[in-house]
Formats: sequence, C-alpha cells, structure tokens
Amino acid sequence: MSGIFLIGFMASGKSQVAKRLAKRLSMPFVDLDMHIESQAGQSIAAIFQSGGEVEFRRLEREALASVLAGVPSVVATGGGCACSFDNLERMKAAGSVIHLSTPLSTCLSRASEESASSALSGRPLLSQPHEDIESLYRARAPIYRRAQVSVSTEAKTPDMVALDIELALQSADMASVNSDEIAVVALQERSYPVVVEPNCLQNLGTALREKLPKCKTVGLISDDKVFALYGAKVRQVLEASGFRVEEAVVPAGEESKEIGVFQSLSETLIGKGLDRSSVIVALGGGVVGDLAGFVAASLFRGIALVQVPTTLLAMTDSSIGGKTGVNSALGKNLIGAFWQPKLVWADPLTLSTLPKRERVAAFGELVKYALLDDAIWPLVVRCAQHIGDESGQGFVVEDVLSELIRACAALKAAIVSADERESGLRATLNLGHTVAHAIESAAGYGSVLHGEAVALGLLATCRVSHALGYCSDELESQVSKILATAGLDVELEPWLRNEVLNRIGVDKKRTGSRVRFVVVSKPGDIRLHEIELAELISLLQKD
Amino acid sequence: MSGIFLIGFMASGKSQVAKRLAKRLSMPFVDLDMHIESQAGQSIAAIFQSGGEVEFRRLEREALASVLAGVPSVVATGGGCACSFDNLERMKAAGSVIHLSTPLSTCLSRASEESASSALSGRPLLSQPHEDIESLYRARAPIYRRAQVSVSTEAKTPDMVALDIELALQSADMASVNSDEIAVVALQERSYPVVVEPNCLQNLGTALREKLPKCKTVGLISDDKVFALYGAKVRQVLEASGFRVEEAVVPAGEESKEIGVFQSLSETLIGKGLDRSSVIVALGGGVVGDLAGFVAASLFRGIALVQVPTTLLAMTDSSIGGKTGVNSALGKNLIGAFWQPKLVWADPLTLSTLPKRERVAAFGELVKYALLDDAIWPLVVRCAQHIGDESGQGFVVEDVLSELIRACAALKAAIVSADERESGLRATLNLGHTVAHAIESAAGYGSVLHGEAVALGLLATCRVSHALGYCSDELESQVSKILATAGLDVELEPWLRNEVLNRIGVDKKRTGSRVRFVVVSKPGDIRLHEIELAELISLLQKD
Repeated sequence: MSGIFLIGFMASGKSQVAKRLAKRLSMPFVDLDMHIESQAGQSIAAIFQSGGEVEFRRLEREALASVLAGVPSVVATGGGCACSFDNLERMKAAGSVIHLSTPLSTCLSRASEESASSALSGRPLLSQPHEDIESLYRARAPIYRRAQVSVSTEAKTPDMVALDIELALQSADMASVNSDEIAVVALQERSYPVVVEPNCLQNLGTALREKLPKCKTVGLISDDKVFALYGAKVRQVLEASGFRVEEAVVPAGEESKEIGVFQSLSETLIGKGLDRSSVIVALGGGVVGDLAGFVAASLFRGIALVQVPTTLLAMTDSSIGGKTGVNSALGKNLIGAFWQPKLVWADPLTLSTLPKRERVAAFGELVKYALLDDAIWPLVVRCAQHIGDESGQGFVVEDVLSELIRACAALKAAIVSADERESGLRATLNLGHTVAHAIESAAGYGSVLHGEAVALGLLATCRVSHALGYCSDELESQVSKILATAGLDVELEPWLRNEVLNRIGVDKKRTGSRVRFVVVSKPGDIRLHEIELAELISLLQKD
Repeated sequence: MSGIFLIGFMASGKSQVAKRLAKRLSMPFVDLDMHIESQAGQSIAAIFQSGGEVEFRRLEREALASVLAGVPSVVATGGGCACSFDNLERMKAAGSVIHLSTPLSTCLSRASEESASSALSGRPLLSQPHEDIESLYRARAPIYRRAQVSVSTEAKTPDMVALDIELALQSADMASVNSDEIAVVALQERSYPVVVEPNCLQNLGTALREKLPKCKTVGLISDDKVFALYGAKVRQVLEASGFRVEEAVVPAGEESKEIGVFQSLSETLIGKGLDRSSVIVALGGGVVGDLAGFVAASLFRGIALVQVPTTLLAMTDSSIGGKTGVNSALGKNLIGAFWQPKLVWADPLTLSTLPKRERVAAFGELVKYALLDDAIWPLVVRCAQHIGDESGQGFVVEDVLSELIRACAALKAAIVSADERESGLRATLNLGHTVAHAIESAAGYGSVLHGEAVALGLLATCRVSHALGYCSDELESQVSKILATAGLDVELEPWLRNEVLNRIGVDKKRTGSRVRFVVVSKPGDIRLHEIELAELISLLQKD
C-alpha cells in the first residue's frame, strides 16, 4: 500500500478522517501542519508572523519531502498544500490523493464551532471577509478536483468518510491497471474506477475477471457499426478470460434508444441464458451506453454493468455517472434509471474509427470541461488544431488526447462523486446545455450533432454571463477562437432566431417560468444563476 | 419525543449505539444493566449467583419501571429484557422499540474481541456451548423482530447505526398517524413507514401532503376493478389536500404486468404533465403495485412512489420491500427494479370488496408468516375460520384481521430492513415458494391462485423438513388443519405429479443443480438447506 494524502478546504475534516482511515488501514497517521510545527520548533501562526506565507510554504515543501521519504502514511495536508502543482504531483506519484469535498457553508460552520469549543486560537482564515473566503474557495475547488478520488463529506461522520475512502480505493485497486490511468467515482460500495488507456481494450477480459471473479456470462450489447469494428476482438479477449459471450446488436443511431429495443434486448439476453450473476458490457457510444445501462439496471432487477465507451463523448461524459435510459415519444431520456457501472474501460485507440465530424463535435463538450476546470484549458488548446485531422489513427495515439480525456473523465468522476443525483454540483455539467438543447430541438435531432450544439451553447453562455456581469466579453472571443480552430461552427447569430428562442427552457429541468442557468466567470469559476425565461431570452437576443 | 429502547442479541452493539443516538437526539442515555447494578448495589454476576435468573429478571422489571417513570431516554436493554412479553409491551407503549439486527457470527466475534480487550469478566453467554448459543439466537430472533423498527448493524460503526435509527424514526414521525399503526422499513435515507389502519384511506391526502409537502401532481395508477370501487374516493381525498390527480388505469389481471403496458403508462403520465417532483400512487393489488412501482422507478430516472395496497397479499407482502417489475415472455418478474416507496398505506376496510376466493387464498401467505414468527400463529388461528366469511364487510373491520395484517407487514418490514436485496435473510420469505412456483407453472398461472399454491407449498415444505430431520411430522398436520379451516385445498398428493416435479427449481433462483430450500423446524425457526434437485424431488414423492 502506498501513501494516502487528504486534501481539501479548511475544516473539511482532513485530520479527523485521516486519523480514522489510518486506523482502519493500520498505517501511520501524519498531520502535515503539526509536522511543520515540530520541524520548525514554532507554531504556524508564529511562522506566518516571522516569515510570512512564503516561508511557511517553503517549510511545508520540506515537511512533505520528509514525509514522502518515510514509510507510507495517511497524511492530512493543510488547505493550501495541494495548490502547489509540484506538491500535488509529488503526492500523486507517491500514492493516492483524496479530496474531501465539502460545501463552503459546511466548512465555515464547522470552523466556527471548532474555534468556539477549542482553547486554540481560531483558524486564521475565519477572520477574513466572507467574500475573500468565498473567492478562495472558488479558486481552489478545481485544484482539489485534480485529486485521483473526490469523496463527499456531507452529512457524514469522519468514520463514514474514512470508510468511503477505503471503499473507493478498494474499487480502484486493480492489478491489471496502472494507477496513473485511473480516476475513481466514489459512491461507497458502488464505487468504481474509470480507466483511460490507449490499447486497454485487449486487457478487458483480465480486468473484467478481476472485478467479477465469479461471473460466467457476458451480455455484450453494441451497435452494428461498432460491433463490426471491435465486436470480434472484444469477444475474443473475454472468452480468453473464461467468459461465455452472448451478443445483442442494435442498429447504430439514436433511433435504437427506445423502449421497444430495450424490451427486445432484454428478452434476447434472458433467452440466451443470462442470470443474476451475469454482466452487461456496453460497447459503443452514448446510445449504446444509455440503452445497455438501462437493460443492466432492469434485468432481474439489476445486474452488473461495464461501460466500454468508443466515442469521445461517451469516454468523457455519458459512460460515467450512471445515467441510463431511453427516449420517450414525448422527450429524450424520460424513461430510465440511475445505475452505476462496476468499471468504465476507455481505449482512446478506438477513436481512430470515429467519423471526423463526430470527433470534432465532441470537442464542444471538451471545451465545456475546460471552462469548468482551468487545468484542462491548456490541454484543449493543444488538441484543438489536431482534433479534425483526417488521419485519425495517427492522431489519437498521441498522449495529449489521452491526457485530455483522462482529465475530463476525472472531473466528471469527481462531480458525480459529490452529487450522484444532480441535486447541486452536477447541474454545473449543464453549462451551455440550455441553449444547446433548444438548438438541437429546433434543428431536429441528428441534423446538428450534440457537441456542435454545445459549442454554440457555450458561446451563448459566455454572452449571457457577460451581460449579467459575471465575465468580460473577451471570454466569448477566447472560446470562439478555440472552437473555430477545432473546426466547429461559431456563427451564433443565425441560430438565435425565434425557433430556437421559443424552445429554450422547454425541458424537464424547468421549474415554473424561471430556469437555472449555468454562468461562467472565468475558466474554473462556474455558478448557477436563476433567471426568468423572458430575461434570458432578451439577453440572448442582444448583440 | 418519547423514549427509545434498543433491543437485540448480546454484542449487537446496543450500549454503544444508544450512547451515540442519545447524543444525536440530545436525550439522556440509560444502560439498563448498569441501572440494575446500581439499584441492587451488586454486579449482575453476583445477582445471578445469589438469586439466579428469576431474581435478575425481577430486578430488571423494576429497573425498567423506574426508567419508564423518568424522563424519556435512549435505553440500552439487556439481551433478554425484551423476551418478557410484558417488558416489550411496556416499552412499546412508552415509545419506540428498536431492534439491532446482527448475524450471530458477528455477535460472537464482537463478544470475544471485547472480552479479550477488556479487564471485565467475559460475557456469561460466551462460556456456553456453541449449539446452545445458536439455539438461543434462533429462539430470540422472532421476538426481537416484534420491535417497531429493525435496523441492520452489519458493516456499520455505532455512529452509522445511530444515524440509521434517527432516519428511520424520522420517516415514521407523522402527525397524521398513530404510532401504534406503524411498522418501519429502515433503509437509511430511504426509510419509510408501513401503516395498517381501518379507514385510513380517507386520510391518504393528509398523509401524502405530510410526506411530500412540495409535490403538486399525483399519477394515480390502478386497475379498472379497484378504480371503480375506490378511484373516486382517492381522487377526492388527494384533491382535498391540494394535489392535481392524473389517472392511468389498466385492465385488472396479471396480463397487465408487461412491458407494453409499462410503456403506455409512462407515456400517458408524461403526456399528462408529471415531472420529477410528482408522485406515483399505486392503488390496487400486487400487479398494480409491481407495475406502478416500476413506472415510478423509471420515470425521469426515478420519482416518488406511494403504495396503497387493496388486497391481503399486497398489504402483507408485495407492497413492502421495493420489488417492482413486469413479466417477460420468458418468465415472471424478470424485468424490473428495486425501488422503495415513501409510504405504504393499507386500509383493511378495502378487503371487504375482495372476492372470497382471493381472500382465502391469501391466507396461505399469512400462514407462511406464522411459520416464520410464532407470535403470528395465534393470530392466524383466530382468523382461520372467519377468513372465508361471505359477508366480507362484517369481518374485515374486526380488529384481529388488522392486527394480523400489521404483524405480517411488520415482519416483512423487519426482514427487508436487514436484507434489502435478498442476499440472505430475505430468502426465508421464500418458505413454501419453491413448490408453489412449480404448481403455478404446471397448472397455468391464474387457474390456481398464488396463495393457494403457497398453501400447498407449505405442506410440501413441512414434509421435506420432516424427512430431513428438522421437524416432527405433526407440523404438517397442524398446518394442514389451519389451512383447511380457512377453506384451502390441502390435498397435496394430486399436485405432486410429474408435471409439477419437473418444474421444481426451474426459476431464476437456481444455482447449478442445487436449490436453496427453506425448511422449518417449528414456527419461528426457519433455515436454509442446500439440496440437490434430485434429492428434493425424491423427498417430495415419498408419502
């Protein structure tokens, strides 16, 4: 077992949780701040007074180095420690970095309780104005999310959080995978790893055997296009690991995402002898993943599911988080279930066969992630000019795309871990989607691709965010430039006609005449803004 | 807040949990054994030595009386305290009795850890032979399940169990219900009350409003027969509490439990404007409950569900525990979900309109419960001769049937609380069902009713249990007598022909050629026996 490093905002519970986790795992416990004090021979307050923050950070680096040189431990770090890129990378290299995800309001109330009940001097941060604390919290949130695992602490005791971390680490402890390639969705006993690694398709059998040692039968669901490309290979690697493979292939395209196809897939796989101990493997893009996920959720009241996404959108978004379902005659995704997979297994090499237009369109969603997390921004900048390369094969093996996919998948995993059922944080993933859905609906699904609509939706979001005073007007041009480099349509005006505006807000997320619109201040700084539908529309019409 | 009394086997964690629960709820904590010692001025060991168990139980009664006379507290009782019917009833009258449900193996390993790590003398029970402890555990299990709430402690810290109890009590804390009429399914934040009360249908609106204060729209799913009887009334009480009611009615009968009907119900209710904040009310028997439950589980990836069972089988079994689904062309209940309701609301007065044959058939399931819990036995004995009364109306208002339904519902709730997904204990509910399923399948579903098949299955189970040495042959005649009194067919032999025997074990629970057969030693003493299919069949053929 290597080291475990807890990071997170002030009063997110790092020391309390680390102590209990250390006990659970029979590992030493280290409080990095106390380690600094004992090495320096003075209190942290005194260090700040004499040498300022610069001196403190220097001592912190040294203390971390000495801890890393010792036996693997469970380490509670100070709130600012992980904000040094160098510190974060050294901790990641030495083991697992765990983010304790806690809303600011909870941090503040815990901190004031502690300082009220303790003889120690209050936390230095507490004396600062609330806006400053809030802005610090916002700035650090995306940094913390670079941890391999992000665990929510809401309404949990330190013991429960320690257990959640243990379960998340267990789920990711796979001999067949290099830990660098893993992000973890941390949902207690439903935790699972998300693996992004070129060429990992050929290890799928080994990985599946490791995850499900007793499983005999795989129900392999795919679409005809993907199955023609990868079906034989997947069957072969699964059979080599001792699985019986039963196939169920549907026509490629959104039309397959409907209840009749769900039913015939279910009947087919029951008829082929699947039982409660079987696993569904979803090989394909978002349609296959959503459809196969709902089959897994419903067969025998729920069996194991493994997502093997083969498109850029599925790898970074739809395969992670457990949203499954089919379309109704009355709208998209209206019938389905939350059903988490046991494993997400993404091989970027499969993107070489993705049509160019789909690859480019998906880039719209990747730019959305870059707006959610500024660490992703340089990666999309590096990928923008290559994403449309005709020679897909040559491009996708490049490490930078794998790195970008992994970063996006990790961000999605962290957000899902904090908010499985979209009661808060997960809603930020809708950045750009209010307008995108209206564009798709007005244009007719399929004539504009989802990612293309999202790209336009992001531009509209920048415009609204600027009009509401959240950001400068430069953001729209920055975003526009990167989208155009990738080859996406950035002509927003032709889209913002009546047929699109009329459809804004006409979806299942609406509450009365107000919509929750996701706005952006700058990359990494995202907020929810409740707005009257009429006001939103008038802001969109402005030029 | 009234008193809270924790009961359960030795080392199930009563004191540890009670301490933490008392802190959470800001109530005093009482350890009843320590209270006895301080009142008696000597240790429990000394009391046993001088006065024996009789003297100890006398002091225990006195100590309980003095605690009950004081302020409401969280009370950890001794393992034997609740085994006095009088103690149990006094605790129930004074507040909530909570059972900490813990497998024997866990109790034993915790007890030996404690005695190893503690300077105190070991627990007296630990010195006894293992068979004696096991038989004590078996004898007490049904007594403990008479608690209002049964909470599983498996793989949980005392803090987690305390939280679970708090959530379960919160779910049952309803102003519109008398706490005597409530059993609780304890599943953390998915906990819910099961209410059995004559005439409660007219309070459904108030109860629903209390449970779901912000909900606007009810999707009322029923079958044409039940809807004709109670639809107007239910609509009226719901509208009186401010709900908009949208109806979706299906033809009565098992044929409606299929995916096409599921789809049309879903589309109908989406079309009528249900959204994520709506609730599905299932008004009817098992078919409606299973079907409507799956609709609630899948609409918008899951919305609230309330079960309003109107048949004896649904009130005591299918409405409790969250099993939902539809039949596949290849077998029953193969497509569905686990989806727990927010509330189960059973009005025994609705049984007056249940056809006599259905009422009598359901008695087979009630006898099953009496075999699972001997406290239910006297209740079925009292009901047996009346269940077939032609004047249903006159009979169902009798308190004894309501009491019997409530006892069965409470037992089902306790079992589901300990084992939501049927990995162990919940399998005991299959008592009699291995043969019953074969009879139903051979006879053709509908020609023999489920409860009628279960009655025959119970007789077959008694026969096999006797052949395997678990019980005397008297049990079969006892069970036969009570079933015959109710008016059920008890002629087992004509059924055990080849067409039935050939179908035994041909269902989704089979693992290889062995089946998990539920055997009975005596009422309240149930075990799982793994048996070769061939041996089971040959035992059934013996006379």
